[in-house]
Amino acid sequence: MKLILKISLLLFSYLIFPQTKQDKKIIKKIFDTTMTSSSSYQMLDYLSNEIGPRLSGSLGAERAVKWGRSELLKIGFDRVWLQDVMVPKWVRGPKEFALIETQPGITFNVDVCALGGSVATPSVGIKSNVVEVKSFDELKKLGKENIDGKIVFYNRPMQPNLVSTFKAYGLAVDQRVSGAAEAVKYGAIGVVVRSMNLRLDDYPHTGTMSYGNLLPSKRIPAAAISTNAAEKLSKLLKINPNLKFLLRQQCKSYEDVKSHNVIAEIKGTEFPDEIILVGGHLDSWDIGDGSHDDGAGIVQSMDIINIFKKIKYKPKRTIRIVLFMNEENGLRGALKYAEISSKNNLNHIFALESDAGGFTPRGFSFTTSSENFNKIKNWKKLFEPYLIQSFELGGSGADISPLESKNNVLAGLRPDSQRYFDYHHASIDTFDAINKRELELGTFSMASLVYLFDQYGIIK
Amino acid sequence: MKLILKISLLLFSYLIFPQTKQDKKIIKKIFDTTMTSSSSYQMLDYLSNEIGPRLSGSLGAERAVKWGRSELLKIGFDRVWLQDVMVPKWVRGPKEFALIETQPGITFNVDVCALGGSVATPSVGIKSNVVEVKSFDELKKLGKENIDGKIVFYNRPMQPNLVSTFKAYGLAVDQRVSGAAEAVKYGAIGVVVRSMNLRLDDYPHTGTMSYGNLLPSKRIPAAAISTNAAEKLSKLLKINPNLKFLLRQQCKSYEDVKSHNVIAEIKGTEFPDEIILVGGHLDSWDIGDGSHDDGAGIVQSMDIINIFKKIKYKPKRTIRIVLFMNEENGLRGALKYAEISSKNNLNHIFALESDAGGFTPRGFSFTTSSENFNKIKNWKKLFEPYLIQSFELGGSGADISPLESKNNVLAGLRPDSQRYFDYHHASIDTFDAINKRELELGTFSMASLVYLFDQYGIIK
Repeated sequence: MKLILKISLLLFSYLIFPQTKQDKKIIKKIFDTTMTSSSSYQMLDYLSNEIGPRLSGSLGAERAVKWGRSELLKIGFDRVWLQDVMVPKWVRGPKEFALIETQPGITFNVDVCALGGSVATPSVGIKSNVVEVKSFDELKKLGKENIDGKIVFYNRPMQPNLVSTFKAYGLAVDQRVSGAAEAVKYGAIGVVVRSMNLRLDDYPHTGTMSYGNLLPSKRIPAAAISTNAAEKLSKLLKINPNLKFLLRQQCKSYEDVKSHNVIAEIKGTEFPDEIILVGGHLDSWDIGDGSHDDGAGIVQSMDIINIFKKIKYKPKRTIRIVLFMNEENGLRGALKYAEISSKNNLNHIFALESDAGGFTPRGFSFTTSSENFNKIKNWKKLFEPYLIQSFELGGSGADISPLESKNNVLAGLRPDSQRYFDYHHASIDTFDAINKRELELGTFSMASLVYLFDQYGIIK
Repeated sequence: MKLILKISLLLFSYLIFPQTKQDKKIIKKIFDTTMTSSSSYQMLDYLSNEIGPRLSGSLGAERAVKWGRSELLKIGFDRVWLQDVMVPKWVRGPKEFALIETQPGITFNVDVCALGGSVATPSVGIKSNVVEVKSFDELKKLGKENIDGKIVFYNRPMQPNLVSTFKAYGLAVDQRVSGAAEAVKYGAIGVVVRSMNLRLDDYPHTGTMSYGNLLPSKRIPAAAISTNAAEKLSKLLKINPNLKFLLRQQCKSYEDVKSHNVIAEIKGTEFPDEIILVGGHLDSWDIGDGSHDDGAGIVQSMDIINIFKKIKYKPKRTIRIVLFMNEENGLRGALKYAEISSKNNLNHIFALESDAGGFTPRGFSFTTSSENFNKIKNWKKLFEPYLIQSFELGGSGADISPLESKNNVLAGLRPDSQRYFDYHHASIDTFDAINKRELELGTFSMASLVYLFDQYGIIK
């Protein structure tokens, strides 16, 4: 009787937790291989230092597409191809210039950069009084009589008392995205926005902004100002509310141009119609190398197949690596990819994006049904020995979000976020800000999660 | 009946989890206060940039003692005092020099630094052939016939495939600590040790070494070599096993000198005889600023009382902040503190050390009974909203370890360890390697844990 009980228990546990020992072994193998012979760091070195900035529509972006394709071919996929997509082309032009003039002849240079999508100032710049606000509400209260003809200065800092810096970003970024469209309602002639940065330093952080459906003739220039300069401007305004601000930028939008998503695929041996997608975005802002945003996600995604090949793992399901174009200022690559996938009735059972920096991974966040999430949560214990400790519902990645359906799982790698906004969209998002081990731990985490989805699929 | 059941349940949960709501609230208050108005970063700026290196016995160490005392007085303790302790005094002397000579006239300079406690070379240096080994076993196998008169080059890298870099350090550091004492047995005239660093870079990492009970006349010089230079030396040795290595260093040990632990205390309002100790070590190696090792731990410890004062929290138990002297090369401060505590029958119910860098905290490790640990583990849920996720048994900190008893709890802050050995004992352990938020999250975690021990004490 006892023996029968033991056997049933064994069988039961085998059915409930199939091959967890084997999974543990494979994940250890993925870890060892990644930490001793990954190509992530070396690939990122090339992308960052040999190609560098790669804003959609730029020469850098096209060089990145070529590089991505050739690297994926070297890794050895069944198929590597480019998917055409029309992207916006915005060019910053010569370095922006700004100064604070407290009185004629007394000036302070400040560090600014145009926000992505902004119009230029006249070639001599704009010069006017400044109105500092912390919110659109405050703007509304001040009204046309206080704002007309002036430059609006948005100076609400990112909240320091949130452990997730992404949450702090989400609560502050309205100033950057919609600041110009809001200020123009009250007659502002330009906006200057405190950089989305939790540190005090001298680097302005660019990023996308939108005029909504404002007529081109009504658009006003929008620039980011470094946090140190924002503090200085705010202090000087308290001393002299009549100071003037001069801003000069010569950025310009052009017609859309053709660019590409880069896609590589290995056909699954058992379930070729079930696609597992892994990716990040190949474009970056123009003032840094985009090493964290999102060079890290690109090389981590590509490297997964390297690792699988090294451990001789042949996926049962089809694995697709997608290097999306134009996440930063349009999401056109993601939308095009989703559109074509839908046309072709492709079944993406799982999609994973890394677009939160190459820092020590803390876990994953998921968008899926509670049934699937309950199943996935059981895998967390396989990651805990590697200090990957958070499996949470809520959010994946911008590029994969158009693939969301009732029947699939989307996930985002969640690295430690404390330093991300030090670099994000700034000129210092460069390769020297990458730590090899932290980057590789991300590659390892992603490869391991992909392995588990490949093994067990999802609940339909 | 139902009502009685409800009331009993309520009472029961109150007894088991007293005031968890209140704890949650206080911990949130500690978080908000730390992240918005902590002094940790500013204090560390001073310690790192105005005082700088502070090896035991140096002028820097004495300036650090004075600074520590005056800062603690400013914070406002019931009592601040210095505890005398005799410490070793070792002086590096002029910058070390080393080169590889593959043939007469063909040389390559390499980056080295003397290991702490090493003897000097003759003033012209030592120059000899090199024997590369990976372990003491290999050394033994090679024996006197292969080693006599040569320089031993220890080149076993830290293992990259361990998620805890401290574990990797523990498995490699025998080469640095005992390399000279082992090599001298076989007639070596000096040792060069691959730096305890997981990266490939040009910075040699110093650290303590020991000759055991070797007579002074038998001692041979020991130096660390950067990881890049170690790779180069190894490659060149494969091409030319007869190459020569020249090492020159003029370090010297002096008589012990008087130094100090710095101690500050707030008397508990209810249990003044139960002491909660928080600390780090004030001394650092001489080639960097010691910002991570252990400036971070020093300012985090000191700042806890700042935070308590800001939120108007009056401890029930006595809180002691101890800035230990001489952790790096002697542990004399820790031993003296424990000796005097024991003489005075002091009851340290809890001691917490931060000495693993100012990086994002991941949790705590504890040394205590399983009863106490089971109780402590219940507190983990209070930390999880702040992504402090690891409460593990095993290890606390070198300075507090002499306080271990059956009846108390020792703990160490456990920050993310991936980058620690990039900086550890190297010239780049400087203030610019500190991220303000990461440092402050450590302060917050420590203050919260101290608050809980102050509230609930330990199981006797």
